[in-house]
Amino acid sequence: MNRIITISREFGSGGREVGRRLAQALTIAYYDQEIVTALINRTPEAEEYIRYMAAKRPLPLLPITTARTFGVPTNCAVAKNLNFYIQESSVIREAAERSDCVIVGRCADYILQDLKPFRLFIYADMRFKIERCREKGADAAEMTDKALQQKMISIDKRRAHYYQFYTGRNWGDKANYDVCINTTHADMGKIVLAIEKCIL
Amino acid sequence: MNRIITISREFGSGGREVGRRLAQALTIAYYDQEIVTALINRTPEAEEYIRYMAAKRPLPLLPITTARTFGVPTNCAVAKNLNFYIQESSVIREAAERSDCVIVGRCADYILQDLKPFRLFIYADMRFKIERCREKGADAAEMTDKALQQKMISIDKRRAHYYQFYTGRNWGDKANYDVCINTTHADMGKIVLAIEKCIL
Repeated sequence: MNRIITISREFGSGGREVGRRLAQALTIAYYDQEIVTALINRTPEAEEYIRYMAAKRPLPLLPITTARTFGVPTNCAVAKNLNFYIQESSVIREAAERSDCVIVGRCADYILQDLKPFRLFIYADMRFKIERCREKGADAAEMTDKALQQKMISIDKRRAHYYQFYTGRNWGDKANYDVCINTTHADMGKIVLAIEKCIL
Repeated sequence: MNRIITISREFGSGGREVGRRLAQALTIAYYDQEIVTALINRTPEAEEYIRYMAAKRPLPLLPITTARTFGVPTNCAVAKNLNFYIQESSVIREAAERSDCVIVGRCADYILQDLKPFRLFIYADMRFKIERCREKGADAAEMTDKALQQKMISIDKRRAHYYQFYTGRNWGDKANYDVCINTTHADMGKIVLAIEKCIL
């Protein structure tokens, strides 16, 4: 059985960065919403990515960003549609059966529960998340702290709603995860080393 | 500043075992309710323990158990008393200022917040905690699963109440901890190695 790590995360906590770094450290595949969508749409980049996976050279190759973006995802409306969820689930399952991987978001912890993934939840204090958003995302530059906070809360509410709708579980409830990590002032490198110790 | 690790934990999750193992791995002092009470009462063992700490040979030496015991702690009534809490806080602060240490329970994460401790919360699924109690504690042998579960829930409620009373915070709320670890089916040795990576 492949080694699967799923990451759920609060917006701005650095969950995607943890995922990217972990995949790179372990030299395994990395998937997040952008990549899963590309796989569903069968973009040339996605097809190339799959060829690498099939060749047993699992390296994160799709051009993805870890910076914060506030634009509403283009597939937001669609993601609420059950058909899209089924497509996503199918892509995630194929990925997990193809090779070891890190999967960020998309209810992967629930979809792959029979494969016993190592389930992480990444979170942080609001103050830290605001600072991180200002450092990482150009979109945040023109927003007040209050507006930024409201935007982040709203995004996390959407994630919680999505997760609850498709899994019947409470998003962020530590009972659903193996390890929950508070990234407030934490060293990302140390976090990745620690996770490696848990799973290797 | 000394390296301080505080551990809060659900009853039966193995939090004390994690604490003991971590203190041994790091060769630093270990404190829990039994030891803090012994220090308050100035037992000969406690005095001996302090001498070792003062000699900069911080090793967990007090004869403590990690097995589960269901007896109501002898200081249960006293622990609710503010005077006792103040004595406990004083002993915990002295310990933290004396040397690097692991402190289990007793609101140490809150009492020592100015020393920026690394704050762990250890938890597990109920099914796993019941099995662990049966393995570790002779007291559980004559109890049904239901009775055992009720007893564990009741102990955790008392901990939550104690913590909430003295700190004004919600016990077990991941926002109050740096890392929360689910020990269900986890390898204790790996957990200790992972925590070491976070703090060293």
